[in-house]
Amino acid sequence: MATMLYEGKAKKIFTTDNANEIIVYYKDDATALNGLKKGTIIDKGIMNNTITTFFFDLLGKNGIPHHQIKKLSEREALCKKVTIIPVEVVTRNVAAGSLAKKMGVEEGLVLKRPLVEFYYKNDDLGDPMINADYAESFGFATDAQIAQMKEYALKINDILKAFLLERKIQLIDFKLEFGVDSEGKVILADEITPDTSRLWDLETNEKLDKDRFRRDMGNVEEAYQEVIRRLIGK
Amino acid sequence: MATMLYEGKAKKIFTTDNANEIIVYYKDDATALNGLKKGTIIDKGIMNNTITTFFFDLLGKNGIPHHQIKKLSEREALCKKVTIIPVEVVTRNVAAGSLAKKMGVEEGLVLKRPLVEFYYKNDDLGDPMINADYAESFGFATDAQIAQMKEYALKINDILKAFLLERKIQLIDFKLEFGVDSEGKVILADEITPDTSRLWDLETNEKLDKDRFRRDMGNVEEAYQEVIRRLIGK
Repeated sequence: MATMLYEGKAKKIFTTDNANEIIVYYKDDATALNGLKKGTIIDKGIMNNTITTFFFDLLGKNGIPHHQIKKLSEREALCKKVTIIPVEVVTRNVAAGSLAKKMGVEEGLVLKRPLVEFYYKNDDLGDPMINADYAESFGFATDAQIAQMKEYALKINDILKAFLLERKIQLIDFKLEFGVDSEGKVILADEITPDTSRLWDLETNEKLDKDRFRRDMGNVEEAYQEVIRRLIGK
Repeated sequence: MATMLYEGKAKKIFTTDNANEIIVYYKDDATALNGLKKGTIIDKGIMNNTITTFFFDLLGKNGIPHHQIKKLSEREALCKKVTIIPVEVVTRNVAAGSLAKKMGVEEGLVLKRPLVEFYYKNDDLGDPMINADYAESFGFATDAQIAQMKEYALKINDILKAFLLERKIQLIDFKLEFGVDSEGKVILADEITPDTSRLWDLETNEKLDKDRFRRDMGNVEEAYQEVIRRLIGK
């Protein structure tokens, strides 16, 4: 009998008969501004399960270890159980969102090189920005784990950026979460979707991501569907 | 004839007859909360010139290159002209102020090891936190300069922490600024004072720094004088 282990803003996590495996269930709930703005994106759970499965397969083939074992149904994926490291890893190729505002630059400024940032995953504190040295200072993770996460983030950026460019999508930025598996290894977890990334059309700069929801731009579902169409061709 | 090159919140900078040298003039003006709170700390300029001169002499003897040539008068110091790198380097031994608030920990939590942080020096943007990778991404500084600043910050922390401990003062945290000199070298600049550091009495945890002004605790001047007394014995 599956028990719900955890309910997050966009997903639920259930136990399975295997202590080392969990089921991730993708919801349609959408939040922004650290939960202040709430809504629904119709069929987002179905779309995000499809998109994450696609990206994790691609990354797995390119040598990135990740938690997903297989997609089970429209909204469910079977995954390895990991202990999530409470550090969100954001990689940016172009200044947008909070970075553009914080640094006083135009959204769309191309960075000289990819920028990797770390945030302490804590809703009550608003996910504050930290740096690589915080994790060990505060006991979240070791220096070696942080270095491994950064190395994976940059490699994932290279893989996804090149892949998406062929699909006429600019990878502006994206957020990753990592976990420690039963063998003590750091592996990619959580999801990679338009909820957790910024994806702009290569020619028009049209946003194909959750900023359409955050900024009340409309055509949110259509944008997610367009990402799937370009990834999978249907 | 000396011309004022720049007026900051706590200091004025004047030209000299030598293009490679400037005069730093220490004011009594005190600000907090990024300029929202304004006031005066009587004779702060005199005290901070004394304290900075003392610390820079100590650091110079311990192999840290810095901009100060000599103290000229109560409120003036002759310094090398440098181009300030717009990155504030904060080193912390104990969580206090913004760090304690941001991370949801008690002020006074001893960190497992010193934590070095970088902030983009920009009043209009509120000096936002950045990380070591921002500088080169945005063109503020090179990776080598950032690495050099961090190395100096940790070395300065070791020197000052040990020295202050003998004077029964805990070095909680401090902010440094660095500049590039006429030879292209990164050297310590700005000031090291109770305006730019947190200094707590070893036994009572009494604050001997600008938090007394920021938090309206009273006895601000007395705290600065106490620091001088412990450093110089007068």
